[in-house]
Amino acid sequence: MTGAAARDRGSAGLTALLDPRRIALVGASEDPGRATSRPLRFLRDGGFSGDVYPVTAGRTSVGGVRAWPSLSALPTVPDHAFIMVGADRVAGVVAECADLGVRVATVLSDGFAGTGAAATARRAALLDAAGHGRVRLLGPSSLGLVDLRRNLLLTANAIFAEPDLPAGEVFVLSQSGSMIGSLVSRGKALGLGFAGLVSVGAELDLSIGEIGLATLDDLGITGYLLFLENNSHARDLAEFCAGAAALGRPVAAFRAGRSSLAADIALLHTGALAGDDDVADAFLASCGVARITSLDGLIEVMPALGRVPARSATDKTHKRPAVAVMSTTGGAAAIIVDQLELRGITVKQPSDSVYAELAAAGVPVAPAPIVDLTLAGARYEPVSTTLRVLLASGEFDLVVAVAGSSARSQPELVVAPIIDVAAGGGPVVTFLAPDAPDARVLLAAAGVPAFQSPETCADVIAAVLGRRVPAVRGRRFPGKDEENGEAVTLDEEESHRLLRDMGVGGALPVVAKVSDALSDPAGIELPFSYPVAVKLLHREVTHKSDVGGVVLGVRGPADLARAAASIAETVPSRQPGVLVERLLIQPMAAGLGEVLVGYHRDSSVGPVVVVAAGGVMTEIYRDRSVRLAPVTLEEAIEMVGELRYRAVLAGFRGRPRGDLTALAETVVTVSQFAAREDVLACEINPLIVGAEGTGVQAVDAVAVVRGK
Amino acid sequence: MTGAAARDRGSAGLTALLDPRRIALVGASEDPGRATSRPLRFLRDGGFSGDVYPVTAGRTSVGGVRAWPSLSALPTVPDHAFIMVGADRVAGVVAECADLGVRVATVLSDGFAGTGAAATARRAALLDAAGHGRVRLLGPSSLGLVDLRRNLLLTANAIFAEPDLPAGEVFVLSQSGSMIGSLVSRGKALGLGFAGLVSVGAELDLSIGEIGLATLDDLGITGYLLFLENNSHARDLAEFCAGAAALGRPVAAFRAGRSSLAADIALLHTGALAGDDDVADAFLASCGVARITSLDGLIEVMPALGRVPARSATDKTHKRPAVAVMSTTGGAAAIIVDQLELRGITVKQPSDSVYAELAAAGVPVAPAPIVDLTLAGARYEPVSTTLRVLLASGEFDLVVAVAGSSARSQPELVVAPIIDVAAGGGPVVTFLAPDAPDARVLLAAAGVPAFQSPETCADVIAAVLGRRVPAVRGRRFPGKDEENGEAVTLDEEESHRLLRDMGVGGALPVVAKVSDALSDPAGIELPFSYPVAVKLLHREVTHKSDVGGVVLGVRGPADLARAAASIAETVPSRQPGVLVERLLIQPMAAGLGEVLVGYHRDSSVGPVVVVAAGGVMTEIYRDRSVRLAPVTLEEAIEMVGELRYRAVLAGFRGRPRGDLTALAETVVTVSQFAAREDVLACEINPLIVGAEGTGVQAVDAVAVVRGK
Repeated sequence: MTGAAARDRGSAGLTALLDPRRIALVGASEDPGRATSRPLRFLRDGGFSGDVYPVTAGRTSVGGVRAWPSLSALPTVPDHAFIMVGADRVAGVVAECADLGVRVATVLSDGFAGTGAAATARRAALLDAAGHGRVRLLGPSSLGLVDLRRNLLLTANAIFAEPDLPAGEVFVLSQSGSMIGSLVSRGKALGLGFAGLVSVGAELDLSIGEIGLATLDDLGITGYLLFLENNSHARDLAEFCAGAAALGRPVAAFRAGRSSLAADIALLHTGALAGDDDVADAFLASCGVARITSLDGLIEVMPALGRVPARSATDKTHKRPAVAVMSTTGGAAAIIVDQLELRGITVKQPSDSVYAELAAAGVPVAPAPIVDLTLAGARYEPVSTTLRVLLASGEFDLVVAVAGSSARSQPELVVAPIIDVAAGGGPVVTFLAPDAPDARVLLAAAGVPAFQSPETCADVIAAVLGRRVPAVRGRRFPGKDEENGEAVTLDEEESHRLLRDMGVGGALPVVAKVSDALSDPAGIELPFSYPVAVKLLHREVTHKSDVGGVVLGVRGPADLARAAASIAETVPSRQPGVLVERLLIQPMAAGLGEVLVGYHRDSSVGPVVVVAAGGVMTEIYRDRSVRLAPVTLEEAIEMVGELRYRAVLAGFRGRPRGDLTALAETVVTVSQFAAREDVLACEINPLIVGAEGTGVQAVDAVAVVRGK
Repeated sequence: MTGAAARDRGSAGLTALLDPRRIALVGASEDPGRATSRPLRFLRDGGFSGDVYPVTAGRTSVGGVRAWPSLSALPTVPDHAFIMVGADRVAGVVAECADLGVRVATVLSDGFAGTGAAATARRAALLDAAGHGRVRLLGPSSLGLVDLRRNLLLTANAIFAEPDLPAGEVFVLSQSGSMIGSLVSRGKALGLGFAGLVSVGAELDLSIGEIGLATLDDLGITGYLLFLENNSHARDLAEFCAGAAALGRPVAAFRAGRSSLAADIALLHTGALAGDDDVADAFLASCGVARITSLDGLIEVMPALGRVPARSATDKTHKRPAVAVMSTTGGAAAIIVDQLELRGITVKQPSDSVYAELAAAGVPVAPAPIVDLTLAGARYEPVSTTLRVLLASGEFDLVVAVAGSSARSQPELVVAPIIDVAAGGGPVVTFLAPDAPDARVLLAAAGVPAFQSPETCADVIAAVLGRRVPAVRGRRFPGKDEENGEAVTLDEEESHRLLRDMGVGGALPVVAKVSDALSDPAGIELPFSYPVAVKLLHREVTHKSDVGGVVLGVRGPADLARAAASIAETVPSRQPGVLVERLLIQPMAAGLGEVLVGYHRDSSVGPVVVVAAGGVMTEIYRDRSVRLAPVTLEEAIEMVGELRYRAVLAGFRGRPRGDLTALAETVVTVSQFAAREDVLACEINPLIVGAEGTGVQAVDAVAVVRGK
């Protein structure tokens, strides 16, 4: 989407949401102790320039302002109704909005959540009342919205009672209502303001993405922060992020509820492995969103995002980001290095030529991983020269300048040269070892990221360096029709065949009747040689080895007959009622390691592909990489590179290298199930990875398809 | 050690360090731009009540104060000399101190670091000049020390130019000099002061532990913070921590340089697995120190430490700590839960009877993992009742009270009841969702921990709940004699025998000559039955399988002869020069999983025992638990419980449970090498863990002993 196209889409009639002129406050209270009294007070005290109409049955005035008994009684039709009545009365008020032609209703009321029939019916009634789009709804359970540039404080969040909240250029969209107040107060403490903030509530109608799209034509906005609690409305969000990227506006997100990952291991690991948070990670990354994991990082990330360009979505170099640390204090620099390394970011030592250039410029520094200016002096000249040389070297994606005690009382020594050099743009962030509020204000005013928490600093650096350009490709998001058709689990042979049809390599297993294996084992033709593995083939037995349904290392026809007899005898004794009729025969796969490759259609974001360390490691260490499917070969190589288990496949302790190319190709192939709506999930576990050039072999496989 | 005994030890003549009356500033500068001008200015401006003598050759006054050409020229003998001259002149000044009877010299100068012969000689010369204890040395590379109660600002750290630094009751000992300024400024911003701070520098003479011991008789100190960069002087530190514990003073530590773990894998994994940081963790835990991993957590931990008692060193219940979260805001509570779970702390749902009690007390809350007061109201009564009921329930080790927007503008609603209830002592901490500086000050003044960073909050909770009473047992710390005797690696059979002598169970391998295995395999007596594993036995071949030196699944005598022939033929072709003479024969061990059990004598803290996931997981996932050795059975059970791999051994996916008792007993046995000075290191990898009741089997083992 081009910037202009994004803006066109954005101006879709949500002016009444974002810039209302006539606001009705339905259920406004006189009692200052009640949250429902706040919007009127905030709008009035904040100097809102539009009209405000309290609508409260049985009162002629509220808070000194004339009140009206109903929306219909108002002298004009408001463009935005802010509804604070009890849940049972909301639908009635919304229906009145629809009748009158009110464009937008924000619903503060809760009581619409839940999965039961009653809650579902309440939500349906609300959408009915709104005429399915005639009145656009924000919420329910929205705490409202705020535009600090326009003095629009249409919210019940207590923070906005405060005068002098700074306005800025960053727009916040939040699934948590209380957080809009927390973010504003925390930002104010750092001298960082926001353009506006929207509490989207339950997103029954308007979603974060759709509201975001509507803000794209607001030229006063330079970036977005998202506070997320779930993965809903992924399609809208993706469209909005693409639009923001087209306008050069970065988007950063924090997500709460990361730990609520379902730890249960289901039939398919893939679903549990790629939990909600993994899927969110993959989805947000594909949208070009910088994913922040610390609350303060969300507030502090924006100036850093403006200084580091997003990486290409298909980066073929697979180069790790390079970070330089220059410091005038040893202890603090060590803390930053620790925090970066914990997040997988290695501090890189400048080349000898950089050190030579520094020496020639009169800044003698002994070559070391950290550029330590203690000897050269914590003064303007050495600091500015060093920072300039590091930035000009082209060796680094980012430079961290660590300032010591002087930052507190003498910002002219170290902070001033950082500001002067960073004025040119450049990927620079600052870490202040002491509490240095004046320096922070100076740096913030100059647009230079300045951190006092080493954890927040490293978190922001990791997010900023990890950000990609949104992947531009036609994605299919889950629609309502996705729910049609019953899920059917294929048996192992059908699953292997499905994979082979897609192009997954390795030998296809042979199906044999138990009776044939017992009576004429030599007559079973095998397109591979002994030794083989013999397994029960039965749709209802998923953990075959647990019931004696697997015999490994079968050396020839006689051995095959013995294996068949053992399986025929053992399985029914352990799992009564199972009829042992068919066997699956596979070559014995010996490789350098085992991995899991899986695919499923996530109900929120759609097709997802997973590669993970196999065997017990799949479950214990959750060593995995998740992406939206399909992926390119470059992306698959990157996914394999993200596994710690990769070390085992890459020439571990003198062993040969594994066939990482065949592995990555398999990931690509499996990810291409995204083009097939009939396949809901598929998992190969283990996939044996052979030595370089020998390919991979799917040992166990299971697929779930949509029944007719 | 009793409190009185600790104090006796403490008063060992370090008054001149901690409370000097006559200070000489050797090398004091007139130039306010130089760090060496600061101590004089700080002492004077800070109102130090003792005498201060600048000693600077060639000047009659410095900063308006009369100066002297040398220490000998002073009208009196100072008790403390603060030395700021060039490194080459330091020893001369210290020798002068020794001649005159100056008790303590603090050496700001650096230039004594390094491992080369010159640096070693410089350090030796400095100790010589000090008369090996006649003058006690702080440093070199010490930035000095500060006592904020006594206006003693004997430091070159720029922060101390600032007036009104608050005094408190917490004492700081830091291996980083710049950090003493960072901590003071950060504490001031939170309304938290310190009693004093010492930059210990290189600890050539006085160590953190010895200085800490000297502060034990200071009744104005209630707790200690340590900023560490290495594991030196462990013995002193342990003694100090025991003394502090005896006086009921908590100690917390932050350690920089965590990521500098040597990642190289040596012959013995144990050493690399238990890197410096792991060893520090185990050592500090044994000292009863709360280990903090965030910088701000170090400053904010102390009030929380005072509210939660240390756990018993030998906790036989192996109970995980239970934390309750009560909240008036959903989003922020979810963030805290995430951060706690990331650190392995699970938020526990209150029992039904707690919820019933709340309902009876007029606080209706729907039972859920988080006690959500949104419906009950963010007001004094519901908050105080809920907190009181949760604390009185006995179900929780700690309660986190999360306060929302009201904390900023209306602390009377939620913050006041927290303060009132927490006045009684109880394990309560507060997380503030908005920036709420006034609430923080109120909470800090009441001694209630108040966090604004969710990461810091969770870090402190984890540290506080993990703290143990110091382990009281006679530990042997490494002495100089430890370096005597050459390290000799035993061959595998000798290693197995050493382990068997200690009491490690499982079948002992049989040694056989290759010639016998070839000529008369049936004549080799085995105390176990076939199938067996046959391995080359050779001291110089450590990775036997890499050179064809291992044959598994040998089924009988004929097979044994074939295996011997294969090894005799293959190994010399792959590793020329190896004489294949002896074989090791072991039963084929089939178990539920494999682990590593290791032991080594760390050069700083002494004997250390490690248990880790085995096989490739040892190196890839570093899934391990480290303790100082020896350990009790309870500690060993706890170590095994810390492995994520434990899931595989504890009835994984319907498989039988592993013999965790035999595993823990093996850890205990191996840890008992601590009593044998002749054993430097030992490692079993893998140790096969059989099903419950069937024990364990050491497969590979290697030990390093001290040669005669």
